[in-house]
This record gives sequence, C-alpha cells and structure tokens, in this order.
Amino acid sequence: RIDGKRLWDSLMAMARHGATPKGGVRRLTLTDIDKAARDDFRSQCEALGLTVRVDAIGNMFARREGRDPSRLPVLFGSHLDSQPSGGKFDGALGVMAGMEVMRTLHELNITTEAPLELVNWTDEEGSRFGLSLMGSGTWAGVYPLARSYALPDQQGVTVEQALKDIGYQGEHPAAPFPADAYFELHIEQGPILEKEGRQIGIVTGAQAQVWWDARITGQDAHAGTTPPSTRRDALVAAAQVITLVDGLMRDRGEDGCGTVGFLKVEPNSRNVIPGEVRFSIEFRHPDSADIAALARDFPPMASAVVKEAGCQLELTQVLHYDAQPFDAACVALVEQAAERLGYPARRMVSGAGHDAVYVARRLPAAMIFTPCKDGLSHNEAESIEPSEAEAGCQVLFEAVLARANR
Amino acid sequence: RIDGKRLWDSLMAMARHGATPKGGVRRLTLTDIDKAARDDFRSQCEALGLTVRVDAIGNMFARREGRDPSRLPVLFGSHLDSQPSGGKFDGALGVMAGMEVMRTLHELNITTEAPLELVNWTDEEGSRFGLSLMGSGTWAGVYPLARSYALPDQQGVTVEQALKDIGYQGEHPAAPFPADAYFELHIEQGPILEKEGRQIGIVTGAQAQVWWDARITGQDAHAGTTPPSTRRDALVAAAQVITLVDGLMRDRGEDGCGTVGFLKVEPNSRNVIPGEVRFSIEFRHPDSADIAALARDFPPMASAVVKEAGCQLELTQVLHYDAQPFDAACVALVEQAAERLGYPARRMVSGAGHDAVYVARRLPAAMIFTPCKDGLSHNEAESIEPSEAEAGCQVLFEAVLARANR
Ligand SMILES: NC(=O)NCCC(=O)O
Ligand SMILES: NC(=O)NCCC(=O)O
Repeated sequence: RIDGKRLWDSLMAMARHGATPKGGVRRLTLTDIDKAARDDFRSQCEALGLTVRVDAIGNMFARREGRDPSRLPVLFGSHLDSQPSGGKFDGALGVMAGMEVMRTLHELNITTEAPLELVNWTDEEGSRFGLSLMGSGTWAGVYPLARSYALPDQQGVTVEQALKDIGYQGEHPAAPFPADAYFELHIEQGPILEKEGRQIGIVTGAQAQVWWDARITGQDAHAGTTPPSTRRDALVAAAQVITLVDGLMRDRGEDGCGTVGFLKVEPNSRNVIPGEVRFSIEFRHPDSADIAALARDFPPMASAVVKEAGCQLELTQVLHYDAQPFDAACVALVEQAAERLGYPARRMVSGAGHDAVYVARRLPAAMIFTPCKDGLSHNEAESIEPSEAEAGCQVLFEAVLARANR
Repeated sequence: RIDGKRLWDSLMAMARHGATPKGGVRRLTLTDIDKAARDDFRSQCEALGLTVRVDAIGNMFARREGRDPSRLPVLFGSHLDSQPSGGKFDGALGVMAGMEVMRTLHELNITTEAPLELVNWTDEEGSRFGLSLMGSGTWAGVYPLARSYALPDQQGVTVEQALKDIGYQGEHPAAPFPADAYFELHIEQGPILEKEGRQIGIVTGAQAQVWWDARITGQDAHAGTTPPSTRRDALVAAAQVITLVDGLMRDRGEDGCGTVGFLKVEPNSRNVIPGEVRFSIEFRHPDSADIAALARDFPPMASAVVKEAGCQLELTQVLHYDAQPFDAACVALVEQAAERLGYPARRMVSGAGHDAVYVARRLPAAMIFTPCKDGLSHNEAESIEPSEAEAGCQVLFEAVLARANR
C-alpha cells in the first residue's frame, strides 16, 4: 500500500513553489517558479533511480525499467503548472501521487513486468500562453510544434523563448512514442463526488470544447464630448457578447458551460471611450454535436450584436474538440481497483480538459477523480482531505500495477 | 500679432516628448516623459525671462512682471500631461499658445499693466492616478493635498512618490493665491465647431459630472466544471452594469454622456470564472440636477443588477461636481476678441472637464475652444489645422492683454 502521510507531505512541499499568502499557488508555466518545481521533481525522481528525459516542449518523463524488455511502458502523471491564483492540488496531485507510486515500488523493491513512466506535462492550464493542454497537445500532434513555440504571453515572450530561458527545451522529440497506456489522477474540480459522498470518480471521458480569441474594434474617443449617436464603444459591445455567452450557457441547463474569463480594454483610461477590447470565449458540453453547432452558430450571432453596437468583431478559433471517450479496458481497471479497495465510486464525465484527453488520441487512457471541497478549483481556496488524496493514489497504484503486470 | 508658424513649431517640438508611432502622444503625468516636457517648458520660460515656481502638487507658474505693482496677475495656461494614447493638442495647445503669448510680448518688448502667469497644471487627465483635474483641484482646495498625495497608480506608486521621483514636488503651497483672472485655450474635443464651420468657441461653462470606482465581487471557479446555478461570475455582472450605464446615457439623448472607460478582471485567465472586476463609471450632463439625480439613483440600480447576477457591488464616488458657469466679464472679453478679429464664433458649454472648471471656483475664468478634426480627442489621431491653433492663440493673446491692461 502507498503511504498516505508521505504523499501528503510531498504535496505540501511541492505547494511551496509559488505559494500565495491566501494558501494557494501561483506557478505559471515556464516561469522561474515552474523551473524550481521541475528541478525538485527531477531530483526526487533521480533519488528513486528513475531516468528523466525532457522533450522539445518541456514535457518530463521519468522512467523505471520493467522486467520484460519487450513490454511497452505504462505512463501516468499530470501537470505541475497552475493558474495565476490556483490551488495546491490541480495537477500537482496527479504528479505527486505518481511519485508516491514510484516511491512505494522502490521501497518494496518491486519490479513490474512493463516499464513505468511518470509524466509532468508542460502548460496544462493555458493561462500564460492562452492554449490549454499545450504540452500534451503538442506531444499528441494536435498542435504543431512550430505553432506552440510561437505562442506569446502577455509580455510577448514566446513558448520557445520561455523554454530556453528556464533550460527545459529538451532534446527528445515532442511526439508520441510506443507506449501501452496512460493513467491520470486529478481532483474532480466539480461538486458531484462530494455531494454524493463518493471517494472515487471513474472518468469515462471528457466533454467537448470550443475556444475563441475575440477582438472588438470601435473607436477611442473622449468620454465627455462624444455624443451617444457617434460613439463606437468596444466595451459596450463586449458587454453584449458576454451577456450572449451567459445566455447561451443557461439555455443548456446544468450541463452547459460558457465563460469569458480573460478581458483586456484599450486604452483603459477612465475618461476615454474604449476603442478596443480583447477577450476569450469558451463553451463546453458533453454532447459533441452541441459544441459543433455552437462552433458554427456563435460567430454570426456574436458578430450581429457587436455590429448592432457600431463595432466590429474578429473571432479566432483557438481550439475545438469533440467529447473524448476513454479506453474501456483502462476505465475497467480503475473501476476494479476502486471496487477491490472498497471505495464508494461512480462513473462520470470530466468537465475540465485534462492532458489525458489529448493523450487518449494516441494511447489507451483513463482518469481517476477525487472529491474537492465545494467543487471549487482554479481558486486559491481549493481544498482536499489527506484521506482523499490517499484513496486516489491507492487506486492509481493498483490500476497501474494491474496494467503493467497483466 | 502672435506668430502662427512659431506656435505650430513649438507644438510639434513639445509633441516629441512621448511621441507614439501612430502620431499621438503618451505622456502620463509625473513620469520621466512628463518630467522631460516640464524641463523643456521651464527652460523655454526662463529663456523669455520668466520666473518659474512650482507648488507642492507640481503645478508650474511662469511669471512675467507688469508695470503696476499693485495689480494682481492674470493667469493663463493648461496642462502638458496626456492620455495613455492621446493626441498632440489636448492640453499642450493651451500651454504652448500661452508660451507664444509670452514670446510675442517679449519680442515686441511690451509690458502689461498687470503681471502675467503662464500655468502648467499637474495631472489634468486623471488616467494614471484615477482623478482628473488633480493639480488644479488640489490648488483650488477641492481635493485635500493629503488625499491627492496618497492616490496610487496601477503599480502602487503614489502621487507624492511620483512627484519626488521626478523632482517636481515644489516648495510653494498648493493653494489659491491672489490673482485677477484665468484664461484657458483648449481644443473643443467635440464635433460642434467643425460642423458649423466656426473658428472659435466662447465657452460659457462646463457640464456637471459624477464619477465612481466600482468593484464587483463574485467567486473565481473553474470554467469547465462549475454549473450555471452555482456560478458567481463578476464579469457577467459587470456586463449588466456597462449595459445599464449605456442605457441611462441613451435615455438622455444627445446631451447625455455615460462611460465605463477602465476595467480590470481578476484573475483574468481564460478558463477561470472571474471572481473580481474593478472598473470606472462616469456620467456627465449640462444639467446639474440630472447629475445629482444619477448620483443618488444609480448606486441602488447598479447594486440591484449585480445582486441579480449573484455578485456584490462596491461603489466609491470619486468626484461629483455641478455644472460650472464661467465669469461673465471674462467670457465677454473672449467674445469681443473673436469679434474684433473677425473669427466666426459661438457660445458653447464644455463637454470635457478642464482645469478652468476648478480654477473658476476661486478666480474669474473663461475658456476659448478651437475646432478639432471629426471632434476626435483622447485618441492618437487627434488633429487640428495650424490656422486653427493660430486663431485660438490670437484670441487668447487679445483677451489676456485686454484684462491685464484694463
Ligand atoms: N484541469 C484543468 O483545470 N485544466 C485546465 C484546462 C481546462 O479545463 O480549462
Ligand atoms: N480636457 C480633458 O480631456 N480633460 C480630461 C478630463 C475629462 O474631461 O475627463
């Protein structure tokens, strides 16, 4: 069995990289703080005799050899980057639980049949460079490497530059390699498990998503001298789009998600009518057809309300993916582990995107969810119980071993 | 007569301090660029034999002695700070035209009866520290010096610190001193003069204004896992307030102004439901009673729409002033000068706030407007004709001389 206390201590230690006064974590991808977390991850891995390799997009793979040289490795892991005001567990739980799996095997001197690889994916959150699942998406070939490299942050620093700056542009190709399966443990980031009093979510897949970058152009002008009839206020137009997104979400009932999370006004001066607003738009739904319909219908709807407000809208689609079902055999291994261990569990669909979603395009994959307090995530107050982390890690351990020794 | 070409050259030279690639000016108050403009202003004044003094809020007064020691000085001027993406003329025209008045008197060796003082007011725009007419308002006693000193910019630098940093915290008290009158030349920043083909606006006063700082608090949460029913999206709530402001403006017809010019989202990450939005709100109207009614009625209306969206609103009033009529005798001097010079002119009310508005609480004051292209201001494309600058400056010259020699 894994050691719950040791796992918890390692989570708290990792949370010191980028710790915020409010008890959260600010560990934006490819910053110096992320580098410190990566260095820490690497040295913990090496202390367990694992061999760490880094690929061209900064994904880290820590390998433990198996007994049978003909077997392909079983992968597991998550990400160490966080939101600007994120929590201690989103991503870090999956990585540190993977470390605890490796540590337990090391202590017990167990060699699995297949090799094992613990993965730390680069930039899962997408908050610094605007594209979530960037590392796993590049690895899976969804995003061309050149496109990912060229993405700029708000200061104009590109992904490629940032990788160089922290010394994590590795020599291995950012591309799929032969592997057997991928497992990822993550906090649910939603309210269902807690509400139903279950310890484990058996994740059968993830919902469909579509994301855009939006730019509204009006005309900056003096707030005190420009009569209503000649105004072209980009922020008034953006307010209509935000209201439209919210309405389209509510039309879809409790399954719908629609969010404008990022917004920037130019010139952003209190007595100037805003001439330009840039913002993000995203919709999510378990039904791929519904997201495909929004991908088609939303742009003309939004353009119409913006035109009505005398401005112009430019929409650039950032991502669009269908609902991703996970591999039935891997899902079954998770379910059997939870059952064997006696944890109350249920099957569910992930509301969030996860690295497993893109990995699943290349490998059989599955995920394990654990509850989090009030379903709250992407918030510094994100919170889980040590017993929940332990249960999730134990299920990960058993599923990985079952797959590696089958 | 003043020298139109010399005036234009001096305007173009001043526009080099903070020149932007798009032909505008970014000369935020109390920055190093503002310091360079101030140093330039000072050396031009000193070359004309003027004595420059600086007060505690950084206002600069350049004095030319008169013949009669018993007479109080006639003041004129404007401001050298600009919006973040401002034009070459807003403020600078009034200062450099004042310089041209001094230069003409110097060249012609004219001594007026009363002394003259050319003024460069600190932070007219209000875009860096959030409070417009800051220098003249502090001088007039509308804003206590301690309040002005404590205002922070977006980086947390206070007015007092910024004054110290550029060496413009002067030794003279920032308070009214005995003076005879104040004249200010400014571009109209609106479309009326251009539309009617008139050269000169005889400004009879300025409209009433009320400004607030707003803060909406919701809860940041994951954009993909938080169901509509539990969302408290501060940006969705802000969109309702922006729409409300725009609607209240349009209810007031072409005389109404209502603007949200500044807005900032936290944590501003694309897959996080915004937990906090800070923004500015302002309304303007020629009728003081209407602005007083908005000052009273808007806060509960806004709170209601924010509450409806599941969030909380905090409103802090930044300023509220009634319509300010200018001094009848000073206005008449402007009107007579325009008539004598044969410029087509009309009386009008200013849509923008100007330093003259606060100075008028302490001294007889009046303003002169000149047309600007398409009524566009607070925009890098702000544009005027050299002949318009010359006409405005000539009217300023005659009005000042008439007052100083009466
Ligand atoms: N798990 C998680 O928070 N991922 C970030 C990507 C997204 O779902 O928006
Ligand atoms: N004249 C001018 O643009 N002043 C700025 C203050 C305001 O009217 O908002």
